[in-house]
Amino acid sequence: MLLQETIGKIGALDRGAMEQAQKHLDSLIKPPGSLGILEEIAVRLAGITGVPRPSIEDKVIIVMGGDHGVVEEGVSIASQEVTAQMLPAILSGVAGVGVLAKHAGARLIVVDVGVAGPVCPGVQKRKIRPGTGNIAAGPAMNRAEAVKALEVGIEVANSEIDRGAGLLAIGDMGIGNTTPSSAILAVLGGYKAMEVAGRGTLINNEVMERKIRTIELALAVNQPDPDDGLDVLAKVGGLEIAGLAGVILAAAARRVPVLIDGFITTASALIASKLHPGARQFMIASHLSQEQGHRLMLKLLGLTPVIHLKMRLGEGTGAALAMHLIEASIKIMHEMASFQDAGVSDLDEEKIMKL
Amino acid sequence: MLLQETIGKIGALDRGAMEQAQKHLDSLIKPPGSLGILEEIAVRLAGITGVPRPSIEDKVIIVMGGDHGVVEEGVSIASQEVTAQMLPAILSGVAGVGVLAKHAGARLIVVDVGVAGPVCPGVQKRKIRPGTGNIAAGPAMNRAEAVKALEVGIEVANSEIDRGAGLLAIGDMGIGNTTPSSAILAVLGGYKAMEVAGRGTLINNEVMERKIRTIELALAVNQPDPDDGLDVLAKVGGLEIAGLAGVILAAAARRVPVLIDGFITTASALIASKLHPGARQFMIASHLSQEQGHRLMLKLLGLTPVIHLKMRLGEGTGAALAMHLIEASIKIMHEMASFQDAGVSDLDEEKIMKL
Repeated sequence: MLLQETIGKIGALDRGAMEQAQKHLDSLIKPPGSLGILEEIAVRLAGITGVPRPSIEDKVIIVMGGDHGVVEEGVSIASQEVTAQMLPAILSGVAGVGVLAKHAGARLIVVDVGVAGPVCPGVQKRKIRPGTGNIAAGPAMNRAEAVKALEVGIEVANSEIDRGAGLLAIGDMGIGNTTPSSAILAVLGGYKAMEVAGRGTLINNEVMERKIRTIELALAVNQPDPDDGLDVLAKVGGLEIAGLAGVILAAAARRVPVLIDGFITTASALIASKLHPGARQFMIASHLSQEQGHRLMLKLLGLTPVIHLKMRLGEGTGAALAMHLIEASIKIMHEMASFQDAGVSDLDEEKIMKL
Repeated sequence: MLLQETIGKIGALDRGAMEQAQKHLDSLIKPPGSLGILEEIAVRLAGITGVPRPSIEDKVIIVMGGDHGVVEEGVSIASQEVTAQMLPAILSGVAGVGVLAKHAGARLIVVDVGVAGPVCPGVQKRKIRPGTGNIAAGPAMNRAEAVKALEVGIEVANSEIDRGAGLLAIGDMGIGNTTPSSAILAVLGGYKAMEVAGRGTLINNEVMERKIRTIELALAVNQPDPDDGLDVLAKVGGLEIAGLAGVILAAAARRVPVLIDGFITTASALIASKLHPGARQFMIASHLSQEQGHRLMLKLLGLTPVIHLKMRLGEGTGAALAMHLIEASIKIMHEMASFQDAGVSDLDEEKIMKL
């Protein structure tokens, strides 16, 4: 119900606001288009918000946690208990995304959508079930659970947007979650397991071979339908992946830009985009992960990452770093002067390449 | 004298501090190396400063302005007067780098090393000569002038470092300066003019062909010696390019990290690196410019850009944006917890790939 309602609200970008934004950019003291993707982001923010020169005050990073039955297959270098152990570290600002959220001046929200064990105080407790089933042996969850997890994401995002959030970023915490993310990519992109499985946290060859076999098994056992995003999510996805897809759908429905992070959050973006192709326009890519399948995911979505730091930590760390660039594009729109205002001579139009 | 003294002070990175930094990074709650280049930067900052976990309080962007006799050849879309006109806009924060310097929380210094006309108050007046000679017809400047311009950069950087600057970034302002920068790349990289000439500010085909012919002429007329950085700089360089190379040399001598920007500042970096190959280790690349030769320059220097925004504005805009990432790497070192401190279970070493 909430899911269908949210999807139904996703509209198109505001072309009028985008044209006004582009016109303003072209008046500023710089060669046309010379701020590159910073200008494209400024125009897209106008299209998303419907305001030619929007302002963003309140930035929020939403980290969702969930566990994965597939860790039984020995595909991860960390044990399952680490998911729950990391949540207080994230909240108290001593884990990667905690440090970078403070650096970005962003609020940080941590949600338990499906951690296996109990979680610490401060985490929003919205557990749908204690971890997914082992996808190498059966479905991750049933369809109703997938809908519920999506709706947790929608509710959390709506609540933050009601509180004033003008820019969302998403992050993941879930030991073993590169395996379901790889499976989602394989199904939705039509790839083989070996094309989408990555080294993740630096697993060795033996674990890597196990991971590839596990993904192959997950696809063979579950037979997810590539035309049905909910089926893919329920059969080979994850609870935090579902929650983050819900955040994206809510952001799109409410016309708030949402920064995608690395491999796992981009798997969520693939699901969200399958549930409504228009959701894609409200997403902004942040970094290019070192995880090999990330490039394939971004290509499927038509998104261009702007930070190339070879990171592979997840948690929302890349999205947190990109907030500074989003704010830069906004400040360009508000603070740069026009040729006329600054008393700078016009460029020679006859020498400029016509695009 | 000052130039030789500065070059003589350039030493090696502090391997002991780097090892300590790496050891600390490996203790933090993340898979080993998972913060990618952010970790490499943290280690290099340790090597540069000699402090395993340095702090940086005062950040300074140094923009150098100079004019170029080669604009006579009609290679630019802006007229020469724009160089001087842009300086007050930069200082008052309404030009690209002015906006982004404020966003980065950095001080901004603007220096006239060779602007053709008079410059506004607030600009440091260190003019060596009013613009270079037309490199298509003769040398940009003589060798003594090149040394003087380098020494302006050294003095400005030394003065800022004395004042407490812990991180420098460099930017350029000089209509026509992609042409000398292309010429420098052609000489030092052994490239043909057509391989290094770019669209710069979006010049059309006619201007582009003129630019390529101009670079060919500059190389043929001046015959710069690729083994003599000073000869290359004097014959086909620029005054702001020299000044910025001086800033890099001073930063290296004083063991302060210096952020390189786009095509023009990386030409300065090539010159600095030719004058002392060890200077390279004190440089940090920021963004990859859309200007086609920039990738070739960075490859020559062995530097990896981390921001991919397809910008081609110069002024130090990319370097200003990268300051946030440098600070992120520092905060990771100071604020992240270790596995032990955070009570997070150790990773399974047997599953980790040995590098």
